[in-house]
Amino acid sequence: MNDEEFQRRLEELIEDRHSGASELARLGLEMAAQCAQSAEAKKTIELRHYLAERAEALGAARPSMSPLKNLMENWKESLEVLPDEVGEARAKAAETALRLAEQSTKASFEAAALTSALVGDNKTIITHSFSSTVLEVFHLLKNRGVQAIVPESRPLCEGGELAERLGQWDIPTTYITDAQVGLFAGRADMAIVGADTLLADGSAINKAGTFLLAMAAHDQDVPFYVCCESFKLCPQEESPELEEMSPAELGAPPWPGVTVSNIYFDVTPAHLITGWCTERGAPDPGIGGK
Amino acid sequence: MNDEEFQRRLEELIEDRHSGASELARLGLEMAAQCAQSAEAKKTIELRHYLAERAEALGAARPSMSPLKNLMENWKESLEVLPDEVGEARAKAAETALRLAEQSTKASFEAAALTSALVGDNKTIITHSFSSTVLEVFHLLKNRGVQAIVPESRPLCEGGELAERLGQWDIPTTYITDAQVGLFAGRADMAIVGADTLLADGSAINKAGTFLLAMAAHDQDVPFYVCCESFKLCPQEESPELEEMSPAELGAPPWPGVTVSNIYFDVTPAHLITGWCTERGAPDPGIGGK
Repeated sequence: MNDEEFQRRLEELIEDRHSGASELARLGLEMAAQCAQSAEAKKTIELRHYLAERAEALGAARPSMSPLKNLMENWKESLEVLPDEVGEARAKAAETALRLAEQSTKASFEAAALTSALVGDNKTIITHSFSSTVLEVFHLLKNRGVQAIVPESRPLCEGGELAERLGQWDIPTTYITDAQVGLFAGRADMAIVGADTLLADGSAINKAGTFLLAMAAHDQDVPFYVCCESFKLCPQEESPELEEMSPAELGAPPWPGVTVSNIYFDVTPAHLITGWCTERGAPDPGIGGK
Repeated sequence: MNDEEFQRRLEELIEDRHSGASELARLGLEMAAQCAQSAEAKKTIELRHYLAERAEALGAARPSMSPLKNLMENWKESLEVLPDEVGEARAKAAETALRLAEQSTKASFEAAALTSALVGDNKTIITHSFSSTVLEVFHLLKNRGVQAIVPESRPLCEGGELAERLGQWDIPTTYITDAQVGLFAGRADMAIVGADTLLADGSAINKAGTFLLAMAAHDQDVPFYVCCESFKLCPQEESPELEEMSPAELGAPPWPGVTVSNIYFDVTPAHLITGWCTERGAPDPGIGGK
């Protein structure tokens, strides 16, 4: 993958509104593997330097999404112990990136499996946005009487994509505006959302509107779980930047004097979270579990 | 106004998504006045019976909106003391309807004036949906450094109409998705919303999403005021029906297995309301004030 191709695909990753944090991390690792395979470096030391730069660029692409950053850092660390022979080093670096992607996929699946066991039969789940891990929870429960309440998740309404998929699995699904979340939280047995980042203080970053759902669930004594792989845990203390996307996504005309804001993520504080459900347990006995 | 014309305009009132509760009440009173003026009754007793039926039909048209019901009941009561001469009775019934509409307009304006005095200079107000009374609050504050945060208010985005109007008055306005309300409530000095109905227990019915704003404001120690005329107080104990509108308003395709829900109103409980601001005071010293 030459510089031009890398920049183009990096831009695509930055602009991607469709994929969740885990999916983007895996896309990033696949790009990393391709960079390793196609690198023109003649010596391992050059290769290491070149791939470390790629890892940094990829790791910084989506500041609100920790798995991309975390997995790229893991990969960058693995570059320290590459074989001396450059061909072997290329193969090893590529293999490590793909293995990390596979670990992430497996962790997400295990988090979903543990969560589905926690939910049990004949339950109604309210969620927010589109999480591939939460989709897997519904998939595991589709013959066990599960029902869904799915808000639109403006501006791009990825809730619509989730609702469509659940309907195809014959899961009875109610699709609502984000503004109706206060009316519907109390009709669910539990709220389950994915996350883009888990923070060390037990809070979680996810698509804007998640915080409102958490408050509504808390108000109505509905348990609120965050279900995701533990690669989403952000190692640093301070909260990462909440990415702001193009105001044009709201579709508002250019009214004079009006600024359109499109912050994509919000932070749900730990006291509103009943527990994290990760591959390590549901609720995860670590930080975030009550 | 003949039966056919009355039915047509009643349907329009039921289908009206644009006008607020007070505006619809005034439209209803104007229809009542026209019914009185054009009634074919030969005796006052017949006129009274005919107009009482019209009042009942109009009062039942929008169950989530108390002023229409309340003002129609006031008008119906006034029919009990019409003059014996039928011409005079017609004129009196029409005049009473128009006087009630005028009282409602005056009460809304006074509520807005008292609220603007409460707000003071250089404040940022977050609101929800489009309230003509809240619009008047902004109008009174437009040269006093006021700023606005306005959510879309899906499905029909009447927040957009409010944002456009505020921008035209050079009020710096930030327009956001309903899902971003949790991110923005803490940036406001106070939240001010209108209401469709005030309930005897101190709670308020308003456009869906208001309850979420109230929770976010409470979480972030931002005072939350409900500003409206006191004709919106619902006399009965139990909460009126929360009207559900056409699912088509969400614009979702007909996904198999998915039910689209479009409940237009939610109930904000008294403990989340700092105070009501009505023409009787801001905060209203009656029920709802803390």
